[in-house]
Amino acid sequence: MSSPIVSSAPAALSWQLIEEARERIAGKVNLTPVLTSGTLDALTGARLSFKCENFQKGGAFKARGATNAVFSLSETTARRGVATHSSGNHGAALARAAALRGIRAHVVMPDNTAQAKRAAVSRYGAEITWCAPTQAARESTVRQVIAATGATLIHPYDDLLVMAGQGTVAVEFLGAVPVLDVLLCPVGGGGLLSGCAVAAKSIKPDIRVIGVEPRGADDAARSLRAGRIVPVERPDTIADGLRATLGERPFAEIRRLVDDIITVSDEAIVRAMRQMWEVLKLVVEPSAAVPYAALLDPPSGLRSRRIGIIVSGGNLDLDHLPWNVAASA
Amino acid sequence: MSSPIVSSAPAALSWQLIEEARERIAGKVNLTPVLTSGTLDALTGARLSFKCENFQKGGAFKARGATNAVFSLSETTARRGVATHSSGNHGAALARAAALRGIRAHVVMPDNTAQAKRAAVSRYGAEITWCAPTQAARESTVRQVIAATGATLIHPYDDLLVMAGQGTVAVEFLGAVPVLDVLLCPVGGGGLLSGCAVAAKSIKPDIRVIGVEPRGADDAARSLRAGRIVPVERPDTIADGLRATLGERPFAEIRRLVDDIITVSDEAIVRAMRQMWEVLKLVVEPSAAVPYAALLDPPSGLRSRRIGIIVSGGNLDLDHLPWNVAASA
Repeated sequence: MSSPIVSSAPAALSWQLIEEARERIAGKVNLTPVLTSGTLDALTGARLSFKCENFQKGGAFKARGATNAVFSLSETTARRGVATHSSGNHGAALARAAALRGIRAHVVMPDNTAQAKRAAVSRYGAEITWCAPTQAARESTVRQVIAATGATLIHPYDDLLVMAGQGTVAVEFLGAVPVLDVLLCPVGGGGLLSGCAVAAKSIKPDIRVIGVEPRGADDAARSLRAGRIVPVERPDTIADGLRATLGERPFAEIRRLVDDIITVSDEAIVRAMRQMWEVLKLVVEPSAAVPYAALLDPPSGLRSRRIGIIVSGGNLDLDHLPWNVAASA
Repeated sequence: MSSPIVSSAPAALSWQLIEEARERIAGKVNLTPVLTSGTLDALTGARLSFKCENFQKGGAFKARGATNAVFSLSETTARRGVATHSSGNHGAALARAAALRGIRAHVVMPDNTAQAKRAAVSRYGAEITWCAPTQAARESTVRQVIAATGATLIHPYDDLLVMAGQGTVAVEFLGAVPVLDVLLCPVGGGGLLSGCAVAAKSIKPDIRVIGVEPRGADDAARSLRAGRIVPVERPDTIADGLRATLGERPFAEIRRLVDDIITVSDEAIVRAMRQMWEVLKLVVEPSAAVPYAALLDPPSGLRSRRIGIIVSGGNLDLDHLPWNVAASA
């Protein structure tokens, strides 16, 4: 007699979930290029490769996780739509993935959301529900939307299918540059870092996976030390994509697999961002400059190694830059 | 009896010179990526591919021609060094190519050259000779340098080997995207356009090759109409890389092969540049936005076609941008 089949969500992120994600999202997201720079190698004393997720659909890696989650839903569940509360890259990525599948996306946004971010979400035809700009209002509003519509919540990072989708970044990266000794990855809610840690350590067990976060939002470093999630009360950093608190599911993988968390100052983030614009010719948002910022004053363990840097996204307001600019025309 | 062997420079740019250039510079310059964007396709009604020479060594396509010219010299000639007068991308590209071959580069620069451009040239160890900021002073100074050193002049565009090197852009582009109907290329001195016209028409005779230039430096359009080079007395455009007057050798190929020259306003160039930063996430200099600017108000002949756009470079001063920016931190 066989044991009864019990339908249950998997408990942890596996290599298999990431392989499935890769097949599921192939052709629906970009295979992004890897760039190198002799100038930055000379500056940092390391051999750097940059995986350019700023060239991803929607301008950020978030397309991967959202697409994997949306295309994992059964036909019946999908028909009731998907929902999230995110004014950032995940909201737009979910809207795009839902449009691709031909289902509804409900995105709850604080009513003070910047125009550019509204536009990125509404471009794909998502239904926007406005709420007061507090965490409580966001959560209660998304619960109401779900109660009214039967939509499935797709969390921006505390979701194994989202994490698996983000992990495909590391699969592609190690496919293009198998010799990497170290992988540097930004950490906010932990979706990208946890997915990439599982992927990278599955492919190359001796690779070092290091999370990098802003000093003013260093909940990952604190949490890793404490052995439990320690939120930062008032995150204070220019890297707006990394202000979220670590999720439970990502944290479980990060504890298990991540070798270290490095923190960097906002001053270093801005300097790194500017160098990436100037030398790499990449438009990157502050959050995407965080891993390279760790190389500006590299710990000796990061010198003369082959380092992979994930460039997470390039969405920012070109009318506001973190340095002084004179209009030239 | 065989006829005497006469050493002579070839009269025109041939496909063979471009093939030789490609082999000669392989491994010494980058094979640059091609990017696409659903957003810009929707905006322009065309299917666009962008060949990203802003990711080329030194941040511009100029590395190709300079490297081909420097590595074409005989050992004896090379030992006497190379010289040019260019404060822009060609000066830095020549300095780099000479350093790669282990020979001297002499670069004549007006004494009002911006610090960033000085740094790009001196980084590669070139010897800089300062002169007064006039065309006459540049030319007489470079003649003095050549008389004193025996160095070979490598002209930024009026040189078949330089043109052949620049033509490798089109070879790579059509290798990556064989289905292109149209190739849009910026035109200043004409080195890139002439090289790419010969390459593209050799590979795909029915491709349309179109030069695009700023309205305030429209000598290529005037010259093509007149059938002889008609310089613009005082070029006035934000696209500083395209202010040079067409060279004789490039013009001969352009007359023979280029299907059309389109001119664009500085306003369109700035709008195009900003869209390329915002949507493509590419740092491009104004000159590199000129071909895409032709698509912002596309002639009907450019709609719903597969269009290849050469993004020529990404070197500009991030402290001066052609739009208003507020410092955000």
